[in-house]
Amino acid sequence: MSEAGGLSPTLVGTGDLFQLLRDGTPRTRGELARLSSLARSTVTARVDALLSSGLLEPVGEAASTGGRPPTRFALNRHDRVVLAIDLGASHATVAVSDLGGRVLGQRTVECDIADGPVTVVDLVARIGVELLDELGRPSRDVAGVGIGVPGPVEHATGRPANPPIMPGWHDVDVPELLSRHFGGPVLVDNDVNLMALGEYVTSWQESQHLLLVKVATGIGAGIVSDGRLMRGALGSAGDLGHVQVAGASADVVCRCGNVGCLEAVAAGPAIAAKLQAAGLDVTGSQGIVDAVAAGDVAALRAVREAGRDLGAVLATCVNLLNPSVIVIGGKLSEAGEYLLAGVREVVYQRSLPLATHDLRIVSSSAGSQAGILGASAMVIDAVLAPRAVDAYVAQRTV
Amino acid sequence: MSEAGGLSPTLVGTGDLFQLLRDGTPRTRGELARLSSLARSTVTARVDALLSSGLLEPVGEAASTGGRPPTRFALNRHDRVVLAIDLGASHATVAVSDLGGRVLGQRTVECDIADGPVTVVDLVARIGVELLDELGRPSRDVAGVGIGVPGPVEHATGRPANPPIMPGWHDVDVPELLSRHFGGPVLVDNDVNLMALGEYVTSWQESQHLLLVKVATGIGAGIVSDGRLMRGALGSAGDLGHVQVAGASADVVCRCGNVGCLEAVAAGPAIAAKLQAAGLDVTGSQGIVDAVAAGDVAALRAVREAGRDLGAVLATCVNLLNPSVIVIGGKLSEAGEYLLAGVREVVYQRSLPLATHDLRIVSSSAGSQAGILGASAMVIDAVLAPRAVDAYVAQRTV
Repeated sequence: MSEAGGLSPTLVGTGDLFQLLRDGTPRTRGELARLSSLARSTVTARVDALLSSGLLEPVGEAASTGGRPPTRFALNRHDRVVLAIDLGASHATVAVSDLGGRVLGQRTVECDIADGPVTVVDLVARIGVELLDELGRPSRDVAGVGIGVPGPVEHATGRPANPPIMPGWHDVDVPELLSRHFGGPVLVDNDVNLMALGEYVTSWQESQHLLLVKVATGIGAGIVSDGRLMRGALGSAGDLGHVQVAGASADVVCRCGNVGCLEAVAAGPAIAAKLQAAGLDVTGSQGIVDAVAAGDVAALRAVREAGRDLGAVLATCVNLLNPSVIVIGGKLSEAGEYLLAGVREVVYQRSLPLATHDLRIVSSSAGSQAGILGASAMVIDAVLAPRAVDAYVAQRTV
Repeated sequence: MSEAGGLSPTLVGTGDLFQLLRDGTPRTRGELARLSSLARSTVTARVDALLSSGLLEPVGEAASTGGRPPTRFALNRHDRVVLAIDLGASHATVAVSDLGGRVLGQRTVECDIADGPVTVVDLVARIGVELLDELGRPSRDVAGVGIGVPGPVEHATGRPANPPIMPGWHDVDVPELLSRHFGGPVLVDNDVNLMALGEYVTSWQESQHLLLVKVATGIGAGIVSDGRLMRGALGSAGDLGHVQVAGASADVVCRCGNVGCLEAVAAGPAIAAKLQAAGLDVTGSQGIVDAVAAGDVAALRAVREAGRDLGAVLATCVNLLNPSVIVIGGKLSEAGEYLLAGVREVVYQRSLPLATHDLRIVSSSAGSQAGILGASAMVIDAVLAPRAVDAYVAQRTV
């Protein structure tokens, strides 16, 4: 509802009209008037304002129905760029995308999250500036910054909340640290949430209800419901790793102090330990993936069994959340169909028929890019929202 | 974005301004201008339109700062009414509320859901008309109708989806049936979802993340996340009854054909059967509640044990959804602290510390009114939304 910059009453609501152009489909003024129920004169004024702001561009002409053919308009993806950052325990990926979420440049470096927020943020900011330089984009072109971190985050403030593997990051104002380097909003979220969003925007937008499960050294999930990330009261929603597996032995003690946790029976270290006990020389999730690729029967069995344990927990998630797609990502998803087969076996047996009616269980398609794509999508969603567009247009037409 | 009825460009957006008045707090034109960042002249035009539509009313004067004291305005709760309907397996409750969700009149009758949609809808519509008559409100005052049914619903279309205990209702266009009797939107949802919404709007709006569990003949849940009902892809989200309880005996066969389901160990019939086997003369959920009230030790133990089983499943829900409050409702919640004690025992033991940090586990406060209050809230939310208000104002100012 802002009239900042003296935007005229007619132009307040330009951001609403713009929503009809966000999907990239080129439309004429006439089509926009029809879709919005707005007066033709209002549409013309708003399209002009969007054109002069740079957010919109003409993209050729529609077929003429007699007379001069009308011009079509669409989002100008190149008007500004987004900085997307994905922090892991021991790596950082920094990318620059356009406003359509297309990655224009990207770099991954080793980086220990335990070095603390100031060191890590300085590093990724420096890489961001380098990438922008290489792309010939000045810092003022940055519409906003999205960053994923390996722990729970209070999304509204961008502060990590007691993240177990991020010493020194608790309650740190990450947006403030990044704002020293770049303009626009800085949005922070849990890395698995952003993987879920990345899978959603790239492959599953028509589904609206997606559950992404990351299986690697730990196990976590991100939930998209009605097309929106579900974060929970303290940002810890999707924390599957320490759910008790029905039927798991009470002898399995987890690092959290409880027994029978999903992570303690089905994550990379648990599978590797099982294989080592059977005499195999396997370390880490990559070792398991390699053993499966080599056709080692003990590895196939262990991965399938882990899939069943994961399936037992996901069956509960299916009844509770009623998703239309479950995406399995993370390093162990590279073990391919063996993990998925175990998951499917138990989910389809244990979930309610109605909830599995149209349910798909698939491997990640965005792979290791999911987090970056999600970080970019989160920012685009914010900076192209109606009120943000109103404010941007006002600022550019002063 | 409608300009139906020739609403002037200044008045499009009246619904946005109105959102600042929905909470019932009286505000002056000056306060509205400050809160909305709109020009004073725009605020004046929109307030005038809302006053003449009847949605807004003057409610006294603010303290003067010199000169004539400014008038305060607030939502006129009585401008229109909402019809709220709660259908159970064997009863129907029909209520009329104002636009603030206050119930003005209500009636409950016996009614077999298996009589089918035409018979049941005709019955509740007749009761609705009677209630309106008694309140002296004509049918044209009905802003919309909200109805809860005991089964999954595709909310977007209002059609029940394979509801197990509602023979004849599958895929029936319930909104169309009710539209024959009343104007305005007709919104249909699962009864437990509406209980969750009812608890949320009456007691927990500041929490934003609520899980309501109904424990009676069956067990089901409704999820409010970020203040919105989470329904899932096919409207079956929250279906907890057939989740496998970790640690439950594999001998317990559920009516769904699986073993170890929550309903088979912790719902009313399971507890009653256990008490009967111990020689007690207990039938139904009411019988269990009575036995607990009478201090029968076997009943206390059985209810507490059921609470533990429920807690095992809710611990998973807590990790997955990170709610800030769990509300236990349904007939068995009247067994009071014994059920809750069992739930708390296991949830606080099995959930992650971060997720239980601020978690409250409480009994329903709205009780049997929760469904009606939720149905009313669902309709109010729709008819007082920005675009709906724009359209209403346009129609009333023609």
